[in-house]
Amino acid sequence: MKYAIIGTGAIGGYYGAKLAYSGQDVHFLLHSDYQFVREHGLRVQSCDGSFHLPHVNVYQRTADMPQVDVVIVGLKTTNNHLLAEMLPPLLHENTVVVLIQNGVGVEQDVEQTFPGIQLVAGLAFICSAKTEPGVVNHQCYGQINFGNYSCRDAQMFNNLVEEFCSAGIKAGVVDYTEARWRKAVWNMPFNGMTVALNTQTDCLLKNPSTRVLIRDLMMEVISVPKALGINAIGEDFVDKMIQMTDEMTPYSPSMKLDFDFHRPMEIQYLYTRPIEIAHKAGVRLPKLEMLEAELRFIDSQR
Amino acid sequence: MKYAIIGTGAIGGYYGAKLAYSGQDVHFLLHSDYQFVREHGLRVQSCDGSFHLPHVNVYQRTADMPQVDVVIVGLKTTNNHLLAEMLPPLLHENTVVVLIQNGVGVEQDVEQTFPGIQLVAGLAFICSAKTEPGVVNHQCYGQINFGNYSCRDAQMFNNLVEEFCSAGIKAGVVDYTEARWRKAVWNMPFNGMTVALNTQTDCLLKNPSTRVLIRDLMMEVISVPKALGINAIGEDFVDKMIQMTDEMTPYSPSMKLDFDFHRPMEIQYLYTRPIEIAHKAGVRLPKLEMLEAELRFIDSQR
Repeated sequence: MKYAIIGTGAIGGYYGAKLAYSGQDVHFLLHSDYQFVREHGLRVQSCDGSFHLPHVNVYQRTADMPQVDVVIVGLKTTNNHLLAEMLPPLLHENTVVVLIQNGVGVEQDVEQTFPGIQLVAGLAFICSAKTEPGVVNHQCYGQINFGNYSCRDAQMFNNLVEEFCSAGIKAGVVDYTEARWRKAVWNMPFNGMTVALNTQTDCLLKNPSTRVLIRDLMMEVISVPKALGINAIGEDFVDKMIQMTDEMTPYSPSMKLDFDFHRPMEIQYLYTRPIEIAHKAGVRLPKLEMLEAELRFIDSQR
Repeated sequence: MKYAIIGTGAIGGYYGAKLAYSGQDVHFLLHSDYQFVREHGLRVQSCDGSFHLPHVNVYQRTADMPQVDVVIVGLKTTNNHLLAEMLPPLLHENTVVVLIQNGVGVEQDVEQTFPGIQLVAGLAFICSAKTEPGVVNHQCYGQINFGNYSCRDAQMFNNLVEEFCSAGIKAGVVDYTEARWRKAVWNMPFNGMTVALNTQTDCLLKNPSTRVLIRDLMMEVISVPKALGINAIGEDFVDKMIQMTDEMTPYSPSMKLDFDFHRPMEIQYLYTRPIEIAHKAGVRLPKLEMLEAELRFIDSQR
């Protein structure tokens, strides 16, 4: 299959390079690194084995790219307004678009812009960073789970998973809605609270008041999939997430890093849209609503 | 009547000096200013007319003070643990203790320590500050409303109000529970939120997200008196409080000032106790609970 990588950063750069290294036909959209990668290629420094791709197909605009079978979107959701213009040149009748992005509601909004589009959610569990031009540093993990949102072509979907596996990536298949909300159980409390209180995960769990609050926020999150008919995410999962975080080294979630480095924060898909989806399902999330308001305020003061 | 002033600061200092200036027998407990006031007296610089009391009855410990008819407590509630030792020397059989303090639940806790004690809540609407040793600067307002919590002696209660009026203080009588919660409608949202978001009242109302949040927090507060059978505090009062704050100059509430000047914050009586009282009445206050947790966290990080 032919692949296009939209957003050749920590995520798109890693998975795209792995696919290309395994022999797939991969086309990369680049922004600031375009000239460098055209001359020097892409380099992946990885805990699983480093490698270098001296010659990669690079582009500055999707209008110059070929139509592909799979588009992998690794953009921050704060750039999703660009997709309306970026995607059309890449799409043929049967193209599948994989959104490896944070939050809840992303697929719904892209579908709104492209009715009938075949969408797959990519839920990545990976620590990676673009450390310098053309270099992706992959520290640990790397698994990706695919949740089928609106891909009608089962063969394409299966191929996608298989070709990721063949590229040496741990890839699995999960239920779309359940997987998006499962990630939200951790993401919604910790991303926002580390920004609101300018701290890290460990401090939030060490303080008895915010430890209870984090748990309350997680319980609010799981009330949404429950209202949507998904019973697989229970209180035991909340306990597991807290225990897992207890055992982690002090951690700054992606929104905290965005905040610290003065980048836009993904408030829309980590808070606003999931809260809207909850309201539509008849569920109130008072503490998450408050957190959203605080983040909007913090964002407006920068 | 004989008066004792516990906490000769912006509040106790002002009302005590006004009473003494009007000829009442007032005894002042002082801490750091003791020596200065003993030598130079008390000075009130007031928008209503400044005055100086060259000779005042000053003490360093309540054990040296006489028994009085009225004790006026102007301490910050963060010092209320001291009352157990401070009050007994001042009390005769019929003493009335007036708590001019912030928050909800103060009287309940003092009553717990002194069963049968006669308590009155003093709700002061005043801008004053202790600007230097022995000097209270009174900028504006000055009204005080008394709510009878457990004063059995109606004559004493009436005398108290009358003697305040005779001292040139605007003094009124209000329903205890209603008045405490009415003040909480403004105090609970603005004190905590200005600390949590490190801002002032005007910015919170100018941002559309926190404007809604402030209103939500006020609506949570008024649900408590409603559950306690008090219907006088409705949504119209919430609207009035927001409108009033819109018209105020940018303002830092007392908790924000305490935070800025590294003084302890009155979390206990502005949040913890009112939330406990709400829970006992079967009311959940999710957003105020979250604000309390955030303040506890912020407090623990100092």
